Amino acid sequence: MEAKILLQQHIAKTASLTEEEFNYFFSHFKPMSFKKGQTIIGAGDKVDCEYFVISGCLKAFFINDEIKMYILQFAMPTWWTSDYTALYNQTPATINVDCITDAEVLCLSNTDREKLCAGFHQIEHFFRWRTNKGYIASQKRLLSFMNNNVKTRYEELLILYPQLYNLVPKHLIAAYLGVSRETLSRLHNS
Amino acid sequence: MEAKILLQQHIAKTASLTEEEFNYFFSHFKPMSFKKGQTIIGAGDKVDCEYFVISGCLKAFFINDEIKMYILQFAMPTWWTSDYTALYNQTPATINVDCITDAEVLCLSNTDREKLCAGFHQIEHFFRWRTNKGYIASQKRLLSFMNNNVKTRYEELLILYPQLYNLVPKHLIAAYLGVSRETLSRLHNS
Repeated sequence: MEAKILLQQHIAKTASLTEEEFNYFFSHFKPMSFKKGQTIIGAGDKVDCEYFVISGCLKAFFINDEIKMYILQFAMPTWWTSDYTALYNQTPATINVDCITDAEVLCLSNTDREKLCAGFHQIEHFFRWRTNKGYIASQKRLLSFMNNNVKTRYEELLILYPQLYNLVPKHLIAAYLGVSRETLSRLHNS
Repeated sequence: MEAKILLQQHIAKTASLTEEEFNYFFSHFKPMSFKKGQTIIGAGDKVDCEYFVISGCLKAFFINDEIKMYILQFAMPTWWTSDYTALYNQTPATINVDCITDAEVLCLSNTDREKLCAGFHQIEHFFRWRTNKGYIASQKRLLSFMNNNVKTRYEELLILYPQLYNLVPKHLIAAYLGVSRETLSRLHNS
């Protein structure tokens, strides 16, 4: 029941749906549970779904040619995640999504999202703004990579994810910032 | 007239509008001409519009704390550009947009886009997919930054912008890739 209320409150910030419309919308989501460490999307996979986080914390990450891991996004409750390039273009995944903690998510398929958007103008409106916000987050992440000032990037991270420092292992925060654990400790204590 | 046809063909790939609906849509765009080197958006500016490129080539770029320039995007005909973070959040611009060549664009205000999306489901559909594609491009740009393999990144760039090497000064291509001009020449000749 909690999942339904969380999604309803999330949608209501952007779109107006009647109770009946929301129930129909919600009926297309599949609840799924994952254990800490479990993989949801692996590089190379076919990607059919996007995920709305109900509880726990996921990470979306990329491993480059030098086997170095970069974290693109931490996904907390009410965040959406997937490999959207793979999902929208129907190409194999280039990023991975796995679970930092045990997690519950709601899964929506590509086909169902398109059907819901075509059927309900307000749902299309919701997904347009959801993607607008995702686009902004992606641009911020890109600018944080271009900006060499690690202190600024660390401060931005804490604004974006206030509970992160207590929730997530330090080596993952360092992998998000692209710094060593020692540099991270220094930033946190300065 | 060319501008109108270019926009109409562009929209028709994603959305179905009647001739009358398209004329109404088009009436909200303001044609603007810029000279080579002219600034369209400067860091710190208030941003009210997004731009659909009719002719010429723009660049969206970021100057970091160490005064190093990074190019986020080259915008060619039928591409859209703006500082979307500033536009959507109504915050001051953090990126710059200027003209690599003389350029003609169609300018659409934030207010008019929202009015058009609210009035026409098909226009909302168009802008959802426009942003989906922008999101994918932004993610690709981010992954190219995380991947240290410069040769792969250069090849991806030529796929994304096939005419780029002849159109754009070499130092700007180098600034997009984050390499020196010498490295760029070596990649191009290899």
